[in-house]
Amino acid sequence: MQTPLKGACVIGQSGGPTSVINASAYGVIRTALDNEHITAVYGAANGIKGVLADKLYDMGQEDPAELELLLNTPSSALGSCRYKIADPDVDETDYKRIVEVFTKHNVRYFFYNGGNDSMDTCSKISRYFAKVGYECRVMGVPKTIDNDLYGTDHCPGFASAARYVATSFMEVYKDAQVYDTGQITIIEVMGRHAGWLTASAALASHFGCGPDLIYVPEVAFDMDQFLADVTAIYERQGHVLVAVSEGIHDASGKLIAEYASAEKTKDSFGHAQLGGLAATLAAIVKERTGAKVRDIELSLLQRAGAHLASRTDIDEAFLAGKTAVEAAVAGETGKMVAFERDMSSGQYVCKTILLPLEKVANFEKKLPMEWITPEGNGITSEFIDYALPLIQGEPNRALQHSLPRFAELKKVLVK
Amino acid sequence: MQTPLKGACVIGQSGGPTSVINASAYGVIRTALDNEHITAVYGAANGIKGVLADKLYDMGQEDPAELELLLNTPSSALGSCRYKIADPDVDETDYKRIVEVFTKHNVRYFFYNGGNDSMDTCSKISRYFAKVGYECRVMGVPKTIDNDLYGTDHCPGFASAARYVATSFMEVYKDAQVYDTGQITIIEVMGRHAGWLTASAALASHFGCGPDLIYVPEVAFDMDQFLADVTAIYERQGHVLVAVSEGIHDASGKLIAEYASAEKTKDSFGHAQLGGLAATLAAIVKERTGAKVRDIELSLLQRAGAHLASRTDIDEAFLAGKTAVEAAVAGETGKMVAFERDMSSGQYVCKTILLPLEKVANFEKKLPMEWITPEGNGITSEFIDYALPLIQGEPNRALQHSLPRFAELKKVLVK
Repeated sequence: MQTPLKGACVIGQSGGPTSVINASAYGVIRTALDNEHITAVYGAANGIKGVLADKLYDMGQEDPAELELLLNTPSSALGSCRYKIADPDVDETDYKRIVEVFTKHNVRYFFYNGGNDSMDTCSKISRYFAKVGYECRVMGVPKTIDNDLYGTDHCPGFASAARYVATSFMEVYKDAQVYDTGQITIIEVMGRHAGWLTASAALASHFGCGPDLIYVPEVAFDMDQFLADVTAIYERQGHVLVAVSEGIHDASGKLIAEYASAEKTKDSFGHAQLGGLAATLAAIVKERTGAKVRDIELSLLQRAGAHLASRTDIDEAFLAGKTAVEAAVAGETGKMVAFERDMSSGQYVCKTILLPLEKVANFEKKLPMEWITPEGNGITSEFIDYALPLIQGEPNRALQHSLPRFAELKKVLVK
Repeated sequence: MQTPLKGACVIGQSGGPTSVINASAYGVIRTALDNEHITAVYGAANGIKGVLADKLYDMGQEDPAELELLLNTPSSALGSCRYKIADPDVDETDYKRIVEVFTKHNVRYFFYNGGNDSMDTCSKISRYFAKVGYECRVMGVPKTIDNDLYGTDHCPGFASAARYVATSFMEVYKDAQVYDTGQITIIEVMGRHAGWLTASAALASHFGCGPDLIYVPEVAFDMDQFLADVTAIYERQGHVLVAVSEGIHDASGKLIAEYASAEKTKDSFGHAQLGGLAATLAAIVKERTGAKVRDIELSLLQRAGAHLASRTDIDEAFLAGKTAVEAAVAGETGKMVAFERDMSSGQYVCKTILLPLEKVANFEKKLPMEWITPEGNGITSEFIDYALPLIQGEPNRALQHSLPRFAELKKVLVK
């Protein structure tokens, strides 16, 4: 264990939010506020952009009870960004500015809460600090509903979105077969390159109320086969429920969502009209089968649905933030907190490990091909065994008049 | 009080489902099973279509614990239908068949659980029975997320959908402003002719996390004014959240949803592409403002979201079913159970009343014009006072592995 650095810490949030990313932020903030070596805890407004703009919030000014509400407040309370930082060997401008701002506030710990791109940012900053000799420990705190970070059993944020997806599929399953006149329902789930979240619809099927067909981006999508799959089930049972990842593509790599927008359509105002993937597939299926077809896009609901968060996920998200602070104070830097699954007791136990940031950055972990059925339209029981422990537990959320009571931060700017 | 009739009862469900329509069915079934005068309790498969087809399930064969799970099982467990029954003065065919089937099973009580159209069916059947002297008491049990039934303070099903809508708006509100680069988000809520459910997004605004603009079908929609409204707020605050009813229309009565499909668009397969209202508005707003625009359609999720049901709504839905049975046994017929709000104690109390079916059938109760802001793009505090008591309480739902455990009925057919 190295000597703890004495100084302030900065926590930033980046990339698409999840319903538990604030639980990780709270893990960092609470642990850092309670740590004797950390002199101040600053939240960066909109991630690294807030650092560059010297726009930092003093977390020490916040009401502790409000901060605790972050455990059940969806989205990124500090604001997020999608900022692609330059390669420091090509352009040092941003890095010099970060050192300038950090020096001004005596920042000695930097925690960045995000996905693949954020870990890349984190990794570059960490290497730059080492190169120029600026003493600051840099830790990545993972989040992503996509569950595609390398080297970790799973990512904070995934399980809560998975619980939302599985529950919503079960409920829609009940609705979508209420008439005896037949219906095909197509639900679009987030996931551009990895099918983890769409696969979680299989949890609904496991309990008898889920999709008949599941298509993920790991397998090339064949429109004819899809139509044959849907038609066969429709003819047999009169109702079909389909889950599709937003990122499904054909063998050439072309997104199926682009099939419709290839020939841009105009509405009566002359505006181009954009349709989602589910709407596109629904139109094609309707044309082919003549059936009543419904398309549903889970959209932002699935990543903001904190009321259906997994308690396990909330606890682990907090743990990831807490571990990052403790590890950094103990001397670690340039690492991301990751999870290891320990089943040696016969029960699911989640342990934290640390991975070098450069190993994590820019890799995408796909769904294992052996967890996809040979037909490419379903998910095997191995996925159920993997995902079920992660979605356990109801959130202990605060309510006001039976509606959510989210954290209200004062966001006092540091001068 | 008249003499109770000795005989069987039939319960049917009709129209679009809600997340608590099964709570009403359970109210009927449980109360009827426990009543000494009712000799058998039959569930009609797919509403009146099941009666016509003599497809009845024997509810007495069901496990009582499974029946109780109906309290938290969304959609219509017995199946639903959208069947327009003929005017008995024009065509008696269906009515003769109903009398035939009811006579065969000695059915003396008929409970029909639905919305406007179902109350019309109910009313016609009741009048026909009276005309031909078939002794059977007919009671309507209301349901509709649209909240548009005449003569009742509110309708079972509305409040649960309202709680879903308000919660989802609050969560999306948090997500939709996470970046500092601006975003306009348009969420489409169900409601073809009445804006009650869309208005419930105002509950989210009441707690600081809701839409900036709300458009309901009670007011003619003006595209130019809409674009001016959105642009003004976007320029002021960088983020705009908009709620729109699916049924908004222009001054001529033309649905805004039809603006886009007016010039049908073709995808690369040559299929017509259909977009929803929110997608249509999003494309128009994007064209006008250049902003990032997200469209979300709450679709079936909002009426199937039993996990966010209002406990008050569940209890009242059950009460409506129970009251229908008790009133029918006591001699009532040709009535619908309705709700009266009693605030005399200073607290919200819901009382049941009975309304003649012919007064309810085919009327639509709209949102009061004085609850809509003069600009036609918002909802006043009177609506909050009206709706807030209705959405109170969390459902006490059964879970299995943290996912819903819905009722699994055996559905044993009556011979």
